[in-house]
Amino acid sequence: MTLSMYQASAPVFLRGLESLSAILNKAAAHAEAKKIDPAVFINARLAPDMFALARQVQIASDAAKGCVARLAGADVPSYPDTETTFPELIARVEKTITFVKGFSAGQIDGSEDRNVTLKMRGADRTFRGQAYLFTLALPNFYFHITTTYDILRHNGVELGKSDYLGAL
Amino acid sequence: MTLSMYQASAPVFLRGLESLSAILNKAAAHAEAKKIDPAVFINARLAPDMFALARQVQIASDAAKGCVARLAGADVPSYPDTETTFPELIARVEKTITFVKGFSAGQIDGSEDRNVTLKMRGADRTFRGQAYLFTLALPNFYFHITTTYDILRHNGVELGKSDYLGAL
Repeated sequence: MTLSMYQASAPVFLRGLESLSAILNKAAAHAEAKKIDPAVFINARLAPDMFALARQVQIASDAAKGCVARLAGADVPSYPDTETTFPELIARVEKTITFVKGFSAGQIDGSEDRNVTLKMRGADRTFRGQAYLFTLALPNFYFHITTTYDILRHNGVELGKSDYLGAL
Repeated sequence: MTLSMYQASAPVFLRGLESLSAILNKAAAHAEAKKIDPAVFINARLAPDMFALARQVQIASDAAKGCVARLAGADVPSYPDTETTFPELIARVEKTITFVKGFSAGQIDGSEDRNVTLKMRGADRTFRGQAYLFTLALPNFYFHITTTYDILRHNGVELGKSDYLGAL
């Protein structure tokens, strides 16, 4: 079977989002077991001028929903970015999973050359669909999932690479 | 133009490796400007049981060279993993770039269903080429580049998201 834009996007985002949800569930369980205020993890960051964990999760969600919607030529839903607890962040990820699952291969396949226009630093930038997926959306998605993982590992949550990669 | 296995792998790895090289160059310049022993960064890690920076770079290199070689049905070169300085790590990344550039689209295209067999925890595991690329090689590659970036940001190196994503 020949690779398609759908196969290179929706199921790839879904795998990552499922891992992100599982990682956040483990972090919530860790906080409860160790009697640590979950806000300590939610607000943790690796450098003073990096985003805290909650924002990392929100941007991973945005990367996934934005990419599948734009490739399909659909509107990108705006989520309010108000999550401050593990259950809220997990719900955000689950909502994103449901959204991504709503797209069929037929809506995304053939989007290699579809123009995708984004606001970047206040200006419109247009990318070909394929370049958008591989040079922006996927690297950005993995950046924010990995940094969520790294923040939690740095703060003592017991996670392993298999939590990030998912079942193989 | 229809998406192909080559387009989804070699140029994607090359972009990430170029960014990794640029990030390591900035880290080396930072260490020199601040008169900090570069080994402090090379040996830094985010948790006691996570890999230090040097190993993160080596695994990112391995993910890239292993993936393009396996998709092409070629032998995977073994690099000795002896790098202990920024110039050596940068040379490792540049050597990986040269290796990846040695593959043509014709060698990798059509590898969607090629069997790829890996040793994982001592046992052989076989994947379809497409599943190997999207569920293992690319997520693993981005994990180790992002964690390299996160280690350096955590240690005060001035980097931004554009250093990770590269020119858009």
